[in-house]
Amino acid sequence: MSTEAQLIERYFLSLGAARTDVALGIGDDAALLDVPADQQLVLTTDTLVEGRHFLPGAAPHSLGHRALAVNLSDLAAMGATPAWALLSLNLPAIDDAWLRGFAAGFDALARAHQVALAGGNLTRGPLSITVQLAGLVPRGCALRRDGGRVGDLLCVSGTPGDAALGLEVRLGRRPAAGSEELCRRFDYPEARVQLGLQLRSLASACIDVSDGLYADIARLAAASSCGAVLQVDDLPLSVALCAAAGDAAWRYALGGGEDYELAFAMPVEQRAELAGRAVAGGVRCTVIGRLRAAAGIELHRAGSVIQFSHSGFDHFEV
Amino acid sequence: MSTEAQLIERYFLSLGAARTDVALGIGDDAALLDVPADQQLVLTTDTLVEGRHFLPGAAPHSLGHRALAVNLSDLAAMGATPAWALLSLNLPAIDDAWLRGFAAGFDALARAHQVALAGGNLTRGPLSITVQLAGLVPRGCALRRDGGRVGDLLCVSGTPGDAALGLEVRLGRRPAAGSEELCRRFDYPEARVQLGLQLRSLASACIDVSDGLYADIARLAAASSCGAVLQVDDLPLSVALCAAAGDAAWRYALGGGEDYELAFAMPVEQRAELAGRAVAGGVRCTVIGRLRAAAGIELHRAGSVIQFSHSGFDHFEV
Repeated sequence: MSTEAQLIERYFLSLGAARTDVALGIGDDAALLDVPADQQLVLTTDTLVEGRHFLPGAAPHSLGHRALAVNLSDLAAMGATPAWALLSLNLPAIDDAWLRGFAAGFDALARAHQVALAGGNLTRGPLSITVQLAGLVPRGCALRRDGGRVGDLLCVSGTPGDAALGLEVRLGRRPAAGSEELCRRFDYPEARVQLGLQLRSLASACIDVSDGLYADIARLAAASSCGAVLQVDDLPLSVALCAAAGDAAWRYALGGGEDYELAFAMPVEQRAELAGRAVAGGVRCTVIGRLRAAAGIELHRAGSVIQFSHSGFDHFEV
Repeated sequence: MSTEAQLIERYFLSLGAARTDVALGIGDDAALLDVPADQQLVLTTDTLVEGRHFLPGAAPHSLGHRALAVNLSDLAAMGATPAWALLSLNLPAIDDAWLRGFAAGFDALARAHQVALAGGNLTRGPLSITVQLAGLVPRGCALRRDGGRVGDLLCVSGTPGDAALGLEVRLGRRPAAGSEELCRRFDYPEARVQLGLQLRSLASACIDVSDGLYADIARLAAASSCGAVLQVDDLPLSVALCAAAGDAAWRYALGGGEDYELAFAMPVEQRAELAGRAVAGGVRCTVIGRLRAAAGIELHRAGSVIQFSHSGFDHFEV
């Protein structure tokens, strides 16, 4: 017999980092946390639903990682330092192997980012994983979507599009052979938390790329009351993506989702500074366009303006 | 056509109270919130799953209320003032009437408690509602489960058991006629937030009664390294419950769930003080027993020790 309390004790009681600012963690009606006086609180939540965000049978270790990573990515886009997570799991049944794998995947990433699991909820239901993540940012220093100015450079971290192709492999639409790296990009997204911290003093606006670079740049531009010109030839395409997708690689980079890279706007004069810091942060950032005054996104490729219809993944597009 | 962004704008953008401490609300990657320097942050989350916590076809207005109320109750048990909520909705399809009703139920309760909806998530999936609620409590003043001492009085607010019988009506196991008030107690639980604030200076330990008074008192006692003696004859039974359940009324009061009342321990010398304040808070509190040194819960009824097997609702009891 396993009760909810026993399951929590077995799998979740000591997940993630131990933090001295957790005054009271799992086991009471709510968690008690100490927020430093000079910091603002940053709160986000994201959900993974079986059949929507992952396939039945997906590796639980990867799900534990992803459920946290997609929230870490939101905090990265705000320039925040992650601190405390709550985990709400709807499970169809008790499956010890699944729980062990999930907890291990969550734990490894939480420890890597010094995140404590401070509470949560376990209930029976169709498999769904909701993580709430709280972080901290010095007062007034958070990155937002709406700070971009006309003329600012638009940049993206890493190599967008890889995860979208990895997802196609996971969906059985492509052979896995030769695409192991792209699958890993989908299964184990790396939230750009360190980069987000560096961007606090460089970027004018920032967003995490979860629904596709084109759609998310469009959001950043609109929030900043701007439009944008993007140079398709400047998109940073990975060798693995080019090998797997050939001439369609740029379409994955623009339209694919699940990247969890950062897209940001930056005054031109910060370009040299970014180059130095991005190397330090371990992730390449590439200039791919500029904010402009006219609304909408214009794509340039080989000297011509081109059309691109994919507008990003939306859970309620009908 | 409705996108996730359009649905959020239509139904959720201005839910709840407007608060000046929301530096950035819905519409960015995360919310930015100002925590006063003398306060601790209190975080909780709770989920309602269709078929588990409510029946298919349940009134959406009631669900919007309940999803927030069950979280407010957790903060009440900590003696915290609620402040900011995140809402994660898994919806099988877009149903405007449902969304309108749900949003209205959530909104009314949020405004009543000065809670701002600061963010959230909408995705397709089997109907499931997760609310994360953040509140504030003066540093070091939070109520906990583990502060009870041998000899402390045990008390409960309101009239436990009503909601459990209301649930039986909702499940079709009892006729609704004559039980409208009990159904209302299930559909629209009142979180005891004001009482929780008053208890900060009176109670030694506190817990919210969600899984049944017996089970939750047992948790409070165990967390406080105590056992308890409960006087069944002292249970505060509502007229409506006695009318509907007759001789079994006390069993509902002890074993039913979904009460969202507060159970608490209190030094004997605070009894007069409680009587005065509880009247001010608008909810009656009743002494129903004492913490004792010996582990376990002993039930007294009509001068005898009796047995009670129901140990509370557990989502993973198998």
